[in-house]
Amino acid sequence: MGRWQPDSRGRLQEAALALYSERGFDQTTASQIAERAGLTERTFFRHFVDKREVLFGGSTVLQDHVVAAVAGADATDGPMQAVGRGLAAAADMLGAGRKDLIRQRHGVISANPELRERELVKLSDCGAAVAAALIKRGVRDLLAHLAADAAMTVLRSGIERWAYGDDDRSLAMVMDELLADMKALLLSASAIPVLASQSTDIEPESQHV
Amino acid sequence: MGRWQPDSRGRLQEAALALYSERGFDQTTASQIAERAGLTERTFFRHFVDKREVLFGGSTVLQDHVVAAVAGADATDGPMQAVGRGLAAAADMLGAGRKDLIRQRHGVISANPELRERELVKLSDCGAAVAAALIKRGVRDLLAHLAADAAMTVLRSGIERWAYGDDDRSLAMVMDELLADMKALLLSASAIPVLASQSTDIEPESQHV
Repeated sequence: MGRWQPDSRGRLQEAALALYSERGFDQTTASQIAERAGLTERTFFRHFVDKREVLFGGSTVLQDHVVAAVAGADATDGPMQAVGRGLAAAADMLGAGRKDLIRQRHGVISANPELRERELVKLSDCGAAVAAALIKRGVRDLLAHLAADAAMTVLRSGIERWAYGDDDRSLAMVMDELLADMKALLLSASAIPVLASQSTDIEPESQHV
Repeated sequence: MGRWQPDSRGRLQEAALALYSERGFDQTTASQIAERAGLTERTFFRHFVDKREVLFGGSTVLQDHVVAAVAGADATDGPMQAVGRGLAAAADMLGAGRKDLIRQRHGVISANPELRERELVKLSDCGAAVAAALIKRGVRDLLAHLAADAAMTVLRSGIERWAYGDDDRSLAMVMDELLADMKALLLSASAIPVLASQSTDIEPESQHV
């Protein structure tokens, strides 16, 4: 089997990530991306509404995959089993991607505050959607949000660790290990200490909202 | 003891939150805030660099408190004990604040996508700072980030639950309960299932970065 030839969308994505990495996101135009990919600007805009969508188009697809898996979990699955299925769906989708491209994407986003904000919003939206899917399954609100947040932590750290790791473990395996690490960490947690000043009756000097 | 009279800063904060809630953040000017507080615009700008700082000035102070407590934890404290001290410091600072103002702040931020992004960035920055403080204590990178993320989940949900709750429990108690809930949730987690498609050898149709 020869080297896999990416389709137009894949070629545009590769070219865009390479250019964003080389000269920065703000300094790259759609026309330059198309040129690098050996395609026309019109083709670029047939695949992506703008430069940002190259980076974030996949986030929506990922969220849909994760939420569908959570919603479709067995009726007997508890909240963490259901989010486990969501994480499996994410591993399934992302595991087919290329680590070098994921690393490039991560580097581009980290270097740009605006893109970093957008990434945080996307992750937060995904967490909210997972929580909503859990609530629909009958999980009470608070637990649904905690489970969804834990899942997002594992997903985000898992992708990063998997993409930058130099071993051949699957993304699902890496996330499994992170879940186990979180479990061990929380087991070691003790009660939150009450500070001396909490028991005093002194009026606050200035308000802290 | 009579009703506590807030200082100028507190009065400006109260006036700003009331106006942001009534007419929206974008529709409120610094001059209107000053007028409502019975102070001059000059006084407003002596306390806040801009309208946003009324909402986010406290976030930096909070982060500094949390990080200092994590860094100052006993040498024998594990990562979750250290973040527990950070959460205690947060409870100490915020517990002195007024729930009605915290609810107003939350409402204003939720209603405005730009403010919501900023809040996510602030929380992410705080998490990164906590992780850095843990790494300095000798916690390995990955565990430091997991512990910091868990702490931010507990902090964010805790503040919300505490501010909107109708009981008299302290913020530290609310966060304690959330930690226990997270622990129970993670204990119930099972291995992330491996989906059938992960074992196939088919080339991906399109790349997922």
